[in-house]
This record gives sequence, structure tokens and C-alpha cells, in this order.
Amino acid sequence: MTRLSNYFLKTLREDPADAEVASHKLLVRAGYIRRQAPGIFAWLPLGLRVKAKLEQIIREEMAAAGAHEVHFPALLPREPYEVTGRWDEYGEALFRLQDRHGADYLLAPTHEEAFTLLVKDIVTSYKDLPLTIYQIQDKYRDEARPRAGLLRGREFTMKDAYSFDATDEGLDASYQLQRDAYERIFQRLGLEYAIVSADAGAMGGSKSEEFLLPTPIGEDTFVRSAGGYAANVEAYQTAVPESLPLDGPEPLVYDSPDTPTIETLVAHTNAVLTREDGREWTAADTLKNVVLAVTPIAGEQAGERTLVVVGLPGDRDADMKRAEVAFAGSEVEPATAEDLAKHPGLVKGYIGPGSKSQGGAVLGLEGTTGIRYLLDPRVVPGTVWVTGANEHEKHVAHLMAGRDFDADGVADIANVRDGDPAPDGSGPVTLERGMEIGHVFQLGRKYAEALGLKVLDENGKLVTVTMGSYGIGVTRILAILAELHHDDRGLVWPVSVAPFDVHLVATGKDPVVFEVAETLAETLVAAGVEVLFDDRPKVSPGVKFGDAELLGMPRVIVVGRDAADGFAEVWDRAAGTKDRVAIAEVPALFSA
Amino acid sequence: MTRLSNYFLKTLREDPADAEVASHKLLVRAGYIRRQAPGIFAWLPLGLRVKAKLEQIIREEMAAAGAHEVHFPALLPREPYEVTGRWDEYGEALFRLQDRHGADYLLAPTHEEAFTLLVKDIVTSYKDLPLTIYQIQDKYRDEARPRAGLLRGREFTMKDAYSFDATDEGLDASYQLQRDAYERIFQRLGLEYAIVSADAGAMGGSKSEEFLLPTPIGEDTFVRSAGGYAANVEAYQTAVPESLPLDGPEPLVYDSPDTPTIETLVAHTNAVLTREDGREWTAADTLKNVVLAVTPIAGEQAGERTLVVVGLPGDRDADMKRAEVAFAGSEVEPATAEDLAKHPGLVKGYIGPGSKSQGGAVLGLEGTTGIRYLLDPRVVPGTVWVTGANEHEKHVAHLMAGRDFDADGVADIANVRDGDPAPDGSGPVTLERGMEIGHVFQLGRKYAEALGLKVLDENGKLVTVTMGSYGIGVTRILAILAELHHDDRGLVWPVSVAPFDVHLVATGKDPVVFEVAETLAETLVAAGVEVLFDDRPKVSPGVKFGDAELLGMPRVIVVGRDAADGFAEVWDRAAGTKDRVAIAEVPALFSA
Repeated sequence: MTRLSNYFLKTLREDPADAEVASHKLLVRAGYIRRQAPGIFAWLPLGLRVKAKLEQIIREEMAAAGAHEVHFPALLPREPYEVTGRWDEYGEALFRLQDRHGADYLLAPTHEEAFTLLVKDIVTSYKDLPLTIYQIQDKYRDEARPRAGLLRGREFTMKDAYSFDATDEGLDASYQLQRDAYERIFQRLGLEYAIVSADAGAMGGSKSEEFLLPTPIGEDTFVRSAGGYAANVEAYQTAVPESLPLDGPEPLVYDSPDTPTIETLVAHTNAVLTREDGREWTAADTLKNVVLAVTPIAGEQAGERTLVVVGLPGDRDADMKRAEVAFAGSEVEPATAEDLAKHPGLVKGYIGPGSKSQGGAVLGLEGTTGIRYLLDPRVVPGTVWVTGANEHEKHVAHLMAGRDFDADGVADIANVRDGDPAPDGSGPVTLERGMEIGHVFQLGRKYAEALGLKVLDENGKLVTVTMGSYGIGVTRILAILAELHHDDRGLVWPVSVAPFDVHLVATGKDPVVFEVAETLAETLVAAGVEVLFDDRPKVSPGVKFGDAELLGMPRVIVVGRDAADGFAEVWDRAAGTKDRVAIAEVPALFSA
Repeated sequence: MTRLSNYFLKTLREDPADAEVASHKLLVRAGYIRRQAPGIFAWLPLGLRVKAKLEQIIREEMAAAGAHEVHFPALLPREPYEVTGRWDEYGEALFRLQDRHGADYLLAPTHEEAFTLLVKDIVTSYKDLPLTIYQIQDKYRDEARPRAGLLRGREFTMKDAYSFDATDEGLDASYQLQRDAYERIFQRLGLEYAIVSADAGAMGGSKSEEFLLPTPIGEDTFVRSAGGYAANVEAYQTAVPESLPLDGPEPLVYDSPDTPTIETLVAHTNAVLTREDGREWTAADTLKNVVLAVTPIAGEQAGERTLVVVGLPGDRDADMKRAEVAFAGSEVEPATAEDLAKHPGLVKGYIGPGSKSQGGAVLGLEGTTGIRYLLDPRVVPGTVWVTGANEHEKHVAHLMAGRDFDADGVADIANVRDGDPAPDGSGPVTLERGMEIGHVFQLGRKYAEALGLKVLDENGKLVTVTMGSYGIGVTRILAILAELHHDDRGLVWPVSVAPFDVHLVATGKDPVVFEVAETLAETLVAAGVEVLFDDRPKVSPGVKFGDAELLGMPRVIVVGRDAADGFAEVWDRAAGTKDRVAIAEVPALFSA
């Protein structure tokens, strides 16, 4: 039994000044963690107990999925990350350092390279596969603004698993095993989840799904359809409508002074132009041309800032997170006034796709700017738009895609809205907020190819191994559990990860009460119940109750005045109940 | 049960090219660890199991000693280490890095600062003390030449504990609790140990003891007397002899050409000078003057290289490790020709202490060099020496300490020899080699003072806390266990840390044999025995036996042809026995 009179714990009345979210506030106030630096925490005894229980659940399910546990250092040499390009791609998020001999090292944010090289060292034949290995290990990512406590730290514990297969079918099976294990883990933790398609492109892989906990405070947005489609908003692919016949009125250039916004443009156009079909012009009839600055992170063009124009329906905005996916491997941001000043062909407020007579898909007056022009997938041939005429205070109406202008490609970067169609035809989607609690990923052969991981196949031929990677943020999930399980008085842990099963409080000054409580504690411990015993002799009941509520054990047992009559009070924190129970019957509450 | 047919393991026939010691060779060959970079290793499943068992033993004994487990990040901010001076003092051994905002961080080699600040945050009164907290955590030290595998890595797992007390008596008690826990840990691991006094000065503490495993391959040297004295050779304090009366022959300067060594000087002196007492001059009659270059690491004089001369009996050498202790806080090395060239007063081969008439303790002809002169503790007043006359090809005999020369202080840096007296009068010491397996240390108030850790005492007055620090290298001890427990065929783990209790081998091709083995494995597992089952169908008995011997489980059970008659062969690896045992009786071997 653990006695609070002799425990390394101090509870705080005040929220820490730098804490924004409930988990951060409560885990600090209840003495589970302490800040060491921005996004870097020390673990106190209570926190360590929760973490250990969480890790144990993960270990059990990893073992059930046939995964083998290993452990890698956090400090790794640069070379393998150089080979795969990630040394540069990670940008400022990577902690880099040198040893005394000037050799480059990093603090690993994930371990694809290291696992690939280890397996290359050990595995030679398809007979050694399939193989899934994992670790539970402290990782590092130099977040620009570490915040939200453990939800996004700069040091964090992850379970990362990697699967290795000789064939694509093998990868599918290994992926499914991990995916199933994740479902079991989240079910054991009582965590609701949606499995959503995620973007796989950036990592060079083929399939990727995120486990998201639906919650209004989530930092991720995802879409779901009633018919079963679910995707991270970054991975949502806009449904492409049918093309239309290429006939209709010819383009009409008209004066459009003082139309700096889509709203003013629509109002002006309605004032000066009447539609053939009689309805009013709307924002959806306009083609908004967004100028982005794209800078490749790695490769030959690394650091070269280039402008790109994307045309999207005027009732949509560019979603910069979706733009990051569309331009994976590059930094992308809205072009600045400085960028635009370098391209006089881009007439601010009047940019349009140009026209075929002006040089086909090349944007700009007389096709001179040479800037790539991309289109939203909805802008299919035959659709007609009001858009800029690339001349100050002039727009053009009736400009028809496919007839009057083309593009250099597609960019699916427009924001997603409630009611947009699911790409699989399963109906309209709704937008929800979620928190990532797990990620499964078919990496494919990217890492194995880069690092030369091959095995002999059944015919004695060398084939490149195909890989999956599977991650759960251990410390992050701990914080999420605290977010989900607390009330205004403190934490309320689920039984699966609570540091102790019961918080037993002896109140008052009567030594008999303390003896009764002590005996009850011993009985419970003997029955395998984990007891935190508040045996502090000179602490008031109010303080003890406050601590019991703050610390968050699922059950609190109060042994006080009623002990003389053989009764204690049993609190069920999650249910919010307080029951008078015969002390003799208390142990039975824990035998299930 | 764990099946070898489906385990992440590859054994190697050849020793790794970079491995010098048995533990390194065997742990790599048997698939326990794999090198990632110099001194940095990944842990494979077998290695991880041994490590977990070792950590569990340590956790149990820490709990028994009343210590609370916490966990700190490896990445820590510079500031606290700056305050205590260790940011600089660690020199090149510290991994330093910056985050994206240019803030300085380090990978912690030990955590005194972090623990001190945590306790400052949580503890306010003497009533909260005594307190001992510990962690089992991965540490970093940028060794210049990482070698010997896990024995001296750049990343390593340590259990480091820190005690906090309001009084010196409290520290003594906390120290004793950890010291006792260490004895129990080493006893459970079957590790022989000597507890030796170690130097406490460098860390600013008052008492320090090392647990050394006596072994000829140890990198530490320690001394023991039959009467119970034991000290690290760095901490050995030379017994100071009684002073002698200041009378005898006057100093005599004589020519001494061609006497570059103590040996040639003694021969020459015997040829030209007769001693009054009739015996021959010996090396012990000469005073050797060693020039050292001393460079403070931190503080105002940091980086200032200064020469110091130390006079020691000519039959001794300067022990540079002892010199490091004597000049703690500075780098110290023999002076170079370049150093000497800057001081023409130092006449190479003829340096002496000068004499009082030449300016007292100041060294050099006419006392002009201004170099500090220190003496071996044996050079007490009244002792008489043959030494350099600070003039080319001239020595002086009958030079008497206290009468003819003095010094600026004492430097106890001479090498220690078998037969030297223990400083506590417990008889002559013998020199032995040992490996450090643990270290307990009374830090005192150095860290608490630097970082402002105070508590209210019984009288309501703020007092500075006194601390202890207690370390065990987990991965180092694992390697030491491998050093101690192997034979020419492989590892031979003690039961306490073996990854599995038994390695069960099914041989041949007969499916019945495999079924019998399978049933036996199941029976053993059901009885709580940890079984590694070599069920590989197409592997020859020779390879299986080789692997069983290399991997090193304490017991190997071979189920082969004899299985038809109900018999297996049971190997006790440590005893070297192989017995024919009825399969039905095998489980009883493991019920103890």
C-alpha cells in the first residue's frame, strides 16, 4: 500500500500560468508531471504509474499482434536520414547536434531509417518475413510553439511499430494486424475513434489511416458520410463532376472598378450584366485566382521560391493544410506583396486564367508570366466563370473551361464544407473535429529502396521489402484521457489506467478510525487492490477530500466518524455517487 | 511461450570487427544488441528482456529503501547546469545543442540539477524530508573513445537516485539506506563487490564510496588492507611520516653530467659521493621534480595554462589519475618541451626545489621563476634529498626539507604500490583491479546552495538541504554480467536476469519429437517457467545446439531421439553438466 503521508507529491491550488488545456492544468496541479522546459516534462510517481499502465496495455496488444519489442536510442547518426532526405525535409522540427568529433547526429522524431537498417542487418529471406517490430520510446520534435502540455510536447513517448513484408499482399495483412490491435487498444482504453483516410503522399506511401477521437476541441478536422466514408480533411478528395458541352455565350470583358472582394464583384456584376438563365450571379459563378508561394524543402530546387496560381470557385477558400498536402515536399504560403511586385503580369484583384488566344494555359496578359496555373477539380470542361481579365478594373464573364482556357494541372486545395459529396458516392459529408490518437501507414518501398533492404524471394531473386509504420503517442493519449475524464474538481481516471484503484481517506483525529482504515487498506491490498491510503494525521478532511478529487482515483473510500458503526462512504467519481457502505462489504466492491 | 521459428533474432558466427571485450562480442553475436553509432546501441528482444529483469530487481530494492520513482527528460535546458558550473566543467563530454529559437540545451549525463529543482518546487518543510527519489533513464556522455560495447557507451541506462535531508545526520541515514540497497542489489545479481572510498572533492561533496567488482580486466585500480581499509587509488591518501630533527650535513652541490634518469643519477652519485651511514644511495634518496601543466576548466582562470612543479621521491612516478584528483577542476598533463622553453629557469634534468637562500619556497635559480612548488606528503621536515641544483649538469645532496627548502603546498600524486601503508594504520595495502558497478555519494549542500533549495526547519528557519546521489549503470552492469558469465561457446546467464529460464530444443525430423517437446513447453509455461522453444523445423541439431549455447539460457533441454523412451537431455550451462532426465520429471527441476 502506498501512504500519502510518505509520498512524493504536492498538489497545487492554482493552475500553472502556461497551461491552456484541462489535461495540462490538472496533470500539473495533481502532481503527475512538472515542466522542465517548453514542451518538456518530468514525470512524477503518479504520472509514471498511469504511463506504465498505458504502456502495458499497448505491449499486450502488440504481443497479440505478433510484434516483437526492441528499443532504439534517441540519438542517431545523420547518414541514414540524409539518404532518405529526411535530414533536410524535417526542417526546423529536427533537433540536430554534433559530437566532439564534429559528426552530425539528430534526436529522432521517428525511426523508419533505423528500423529499416536493423532489419537489413538481420533478415535475408522472405522466410524471415512477415516481421513487425516495435518500441516504446522517447522521441523529440522541436515544435515551434509547444503548447497544450503533453498533447504536443517536444519530448514525447511513442509506440512506433514497423512491418516488413516481401509482397504487397503481405503488407496489407501486416497493416490489418496493427490496425486491429489499435482498435483493441482504444477499446480497452474506452476511447471512441473514427478511422479516417489520411494523406499518404508526403511520406511516399500508398495508404494511410488515422485514428481520430471525435471531439470539438480536436485540432484535426475530418469528414464523414452517413454511407461510411471518413477522411482527414487534408486527405478528402473533391468529387469531380461530369464535364459539360463546350457551348454557350462567348467571353465578355467588362469594366469592374472597385471590386476588391468576391462579394463586391458579384454585386457589381449583377448590376451590369444579366444572366441568360435569369438567376442572379453568385460567388459560386466566379473563379477566384489565389497566388501561392511554393518552396521545395529538399532536392535540386530546394529553397527556390516559385509562384503558382490556383483557380477555385469564388465561394471557396484555399485551405492551407490541404495546400500543404497538394504541394507535399514544399513549404507553401500565400504570396506576399513583395512576391507579386516581381510579377507585373499578375494584376492584383484582376488575375484570371488568361485565354487560349493569350497563349493557352499560360497565365497572364499575352501569356508572358510563365507562372504555373492549376485548377480546382470542380472546374471541369464546359463550366463557365466570371473571373479576372488580367487588366486593371476589368473582369471577364462567360469564360468557359476547356474552350477558353486550360490549366497546367489540378490542385485540390479548396476548403471542404458540410454537404460536400463523399468521393466514393456514399452521400454528403459532415465536418467534425478530432484528435489524432493513432496512425497506421503503408510506407511501401520508399525506405527499403533508399537504404537497400532486399530479401531473397521464393525464386531466389532479390526483391525490395515493403514496409508499414504504425504510431501511437503514449504521452499524448495519457493527456487525452485526462481531457476526457475529469470534472470541475479534478481528474477522474478510467480503471484501466488509474494510478491506483482506490483512494482511501481516513478523516478526523480518532486513532480508532485510523486503525479501521489501516485494516481496510490491508484487506484490500491483500485482495490485489491498488490502494493509495491518505493516512496523513494532521490534515483536515476538506483538504483530504480536495486532494482525493483532484488526484482522480476512480473510487474514493472515506473512513470517518461512521467507522464506529462499521460504515464507510464510497464515492464513484465517474458516476458522481456517494454511498454509505458497510466496511465489511467494501472489499466485495472490488472483486469483479 | 516464445518460439524461435518466429523470433526477431539472428546469431552471428563472427565477432563484430569493432568489439574488443567478451560482453560486446557475445551480446552482438547472440543478437542482444546492435551498434547504431560509436558507443550507441539498439536493443533487440533478448537484450531488452535481460535489461527489464535487471531494472525490476533495482526497482524492488529502491522501493524497499523507500525511494520514489520519477522520470526526467534527457533533453534539459542549459541554465541550471550553468548555475552549478557543470555546463562548462563537463567539457567535451557533454552533448550540447540548440533548439529552433537558439536556446541552449544538453543531453543530461546526470540529473543533480533537475532533481534539485524538482524538489525545490515540491518540498517546503523539514517534515517533507527525508526524501529519496530515483529514475531509470537513458543518459548521454560524449566519450572521446567509446569502446568496450556497453561497458562504456555514449548512451547508457542508469538508475540515479538523489536523497534530500535537512540535517547531516539525515544525509548519513539516507546514504546508508541506499548503500544497503546497493549491497542487496549486487547480492541478488551474484556480483562480488568491494566498497572503496572514492574521491569526493571534485563534486564538492564530503563522502563518496564506489562499489567495485574485483577483476583483473577492471579499468579502475583500488587498494585494500587486511585491516579493512579500501579505497580507489585516486582516493588513497598517503600516510604522512613523522618529521625528523633538522640536523645533518650541509647541502653539497656536485657535478652530475650525463644523468638524464634517476637510475643514471643514482649510479653517478654512488660513484662520486659516499654516504655517512655507509649504505648506497638509492632512487628513494632522490627527489624527482615533475613539471605539470594545469588548466582550470571553469571560473575566472578558465583556460589559463599554468606550470606547477611537484617534488616526489625518485622511486615513485606521478600517477596522472591521482593528479586529476589533486588538481580537481582543472585539466592536468605533463608539461611539454614548449612549456619548458617558456621558463628558462627550469633546467631540464636538473630542476630542484631551490633553497631558502635562493628565495624560500619559490623554485628556481635566484627564485625568479615564480612557479608554484608542491611536495609529496612523504617529504616531511628533516628528510634529506639528492635533487637538481637548477643548473646544467649539477645536483645537490644533503638538501633537507624544512631546513634548506620549503614548498607552497602538498600534492599527493605519486603512484601507490603494494605494501604502502593504509592511512588508517590498518596495515600495508595491496593493489587490485576493479570495475565500477555502483557509486554512492554525499553531495552535501553544493547543488542545494547553488539552486536555492531550502526548507523550514523545526524552528521555522530556512535551512539549505543536504543531498546524496547514488548511481548504478544498468546497461554497464548487464555487460559486466555477460563478462562474468560466459564460456567459450557463449553466454551463460545467471537465473536472476536470464531472458528465459530455459531454452528447449526439439531436434531431428520426427513430428512425434516435436509434439513431445511442444507438450513439455506448454507444461513448463503453465508452471510459470519462461521458455524459449527452438521449434525450427529444418535447422540441424548442430546449429540449434550452437545457438542454445550462444544465447546463454541457464538451462537447455534437448528433446530428441530419446523422447520415444520418455527421456530428454538437460544441460546446466553454468555447471557444465548434461544429464539424461525423464521428461515427466523435467518440470520438477524448475519448481524451487
